[in-house]
Amino acid sequence: MRNIKLLVQYDGTDYAGFQKQPHAVTVQGELEKALAGILGEGAKAIGASRTDAGVHALGQVVAVKAECSIPPRRLANALNNALPPAIRIAEASEVLPTFHPRYDATGKWYSYRIADRPQVSPFVARYAWHVASHLDTERMSRAAAHLVGRHDFSAFEVSGGSTHDKVRALDRIECIRRDEGVEVRTHADGYLYMMVRSIVGTLVEVGKGRLEPDALAEILASRNRSAAGRTAPPQGLFLERVEY
Amino acid sequence: MRNIKLLVQYDGTDYAGFQKQPHAVTVQGELEKALAGILGEGAKAIGASRTDAGVHALGQVVAVKAECSIPPRRLANALNNALPPAIRIAEASEVLPTFHPRYDATGKWYSYRIADRPQVSPFVARYAWHVASHLDTERMSRAAAHLVGRHDFSAFEVSGGSTHDKVRALDRIECIRRDEGVEVRTHADGYLYMMVRSIVGTLVEVGKGRLEPDALAEILASRNRSAAGRTAPPQGLFLERVEY
Repeated sequence: MRNIKLLVQYDGTDYAGFQKQPHAVTVQGELEKALAGILGEGAKAIGASRTDAGVHALGQVVAVKAECSIPPRRLANALNNALPPAIRIAEASEVLPTFHPRYDATGKWYSYRIADRPQVSPFVARYAWHVASHLDTERMSRAAAHLVGRHDFSAFEVSGGSTHDKVRALDRIECIRRDEGVEVRTHADGYLYMMVRSIVGTLVEVGKGRLEPDALAEILASRNRSAAGRTAPPQGLFLERVEY
Repeated sequence: MRNIKLLVQYDGTDYAGFQKQPHAVTVQGELEKALAGILGEGAKAIGASRTDAGVHALGQVVAVKAECSIPPRRLANALNNALPPAIRIAEASEVLPTFHPRYDATGKWYSYRIADRPQVSPFVARYAWHVASHLDTERMSRAAAHLVGRHDFSAFEVSGGSTHDKVRALDRIECIRRDEGVEVRTHADGYLYMMVRSIVGTLVEVGKGRLEPDALAEILASRNRSAAGRTAPPQGLFLERVEY
């Protein structure tokens, strides 16, 4: 039995998230279907992150445990031939049998793209949250600074999360002006359910001037989701990189 | 009766082309459905170019003749609210009743994107032709130079075209190296059926070294489609701009 680590990229628009579900098309479901065609039934594809419906990935990590005699690079090519163009295997390598993509992850980078302009093309709208009013990134950065550190992030968790421990170490959060709009980049040891989207939804309120930057300290301390802003929509979110 | 000119952008991936068809989802069909909801039944959306299935547009021009009392800008907003995110109205203005987007067009810019690298992300593959081997743009440019001018372009027309006159004036064709690959940009007074994709398919053969640059002169003179290369797939093609 080999353990093969895949770096997987996907356009999440047309998928009901990463995790397999009985009556929906998911990334894990497509991966396992492609694996079944190459290696035979039963190969499991375990992901580092259960990205939600509509969320994209540039660096999802997936481990496949299977009886597999072909080299990882050839497995990647065979998977790319079998998978839809919206899911691509960028790299493949054999790892130790003990490697687990979720439990072994030490950090994850996410990015969230916001198009803050009156109009956006369909090519931008597919991969960004369209916010018609201009956002003040300087205010957003000041607000975000309150979130850096090891905190109970309950105020930024949407109900439905499965973990009991709500403490996460968010060591980087940056609000960067790009040509197309604003990019929010985050790095943490882990995230609560819809945490990035809850943070971004709240930072956008600050960027619009509807909420003061210092309010983020109170919202965080409240541990109350209803104190924060709306949850940003999925199409702006990208799982950028998983670290081990 | 007003005549309103719309600048329309679309991600053509999920559409069976611009032109309305009885049992397929098309851009024109979606536009007329949205117009019916706002202005009532019967408003026609006439496009400058009948882009094929899977082809994208950054600057399609559409004219709408309708009894319409609301200002063009508000019509554009109402259409954007009614249309799917893959189709966007970027601009709207009232024009003379005689304006016709197809007959009055004096020139059109197309661009075609090719990703010439071993692997591409799903975000690139959706909007480019993935060609695994590296392309020599210098060779492609030399080949393209043979096509500039007023010629019978029958060798680059896929059967199915409706026009009898096969002469077009192609005054610009450029093969440009970009970060993601190669972009072929063309400007002509008009195009035969699948002309850009036939030219690009042939230039890619030259870029790979399978065809000599000077062969383009003979292919053009042959007026024989089978002398040229394959037709490039639709997802790399963008209607950039229509001129009047």
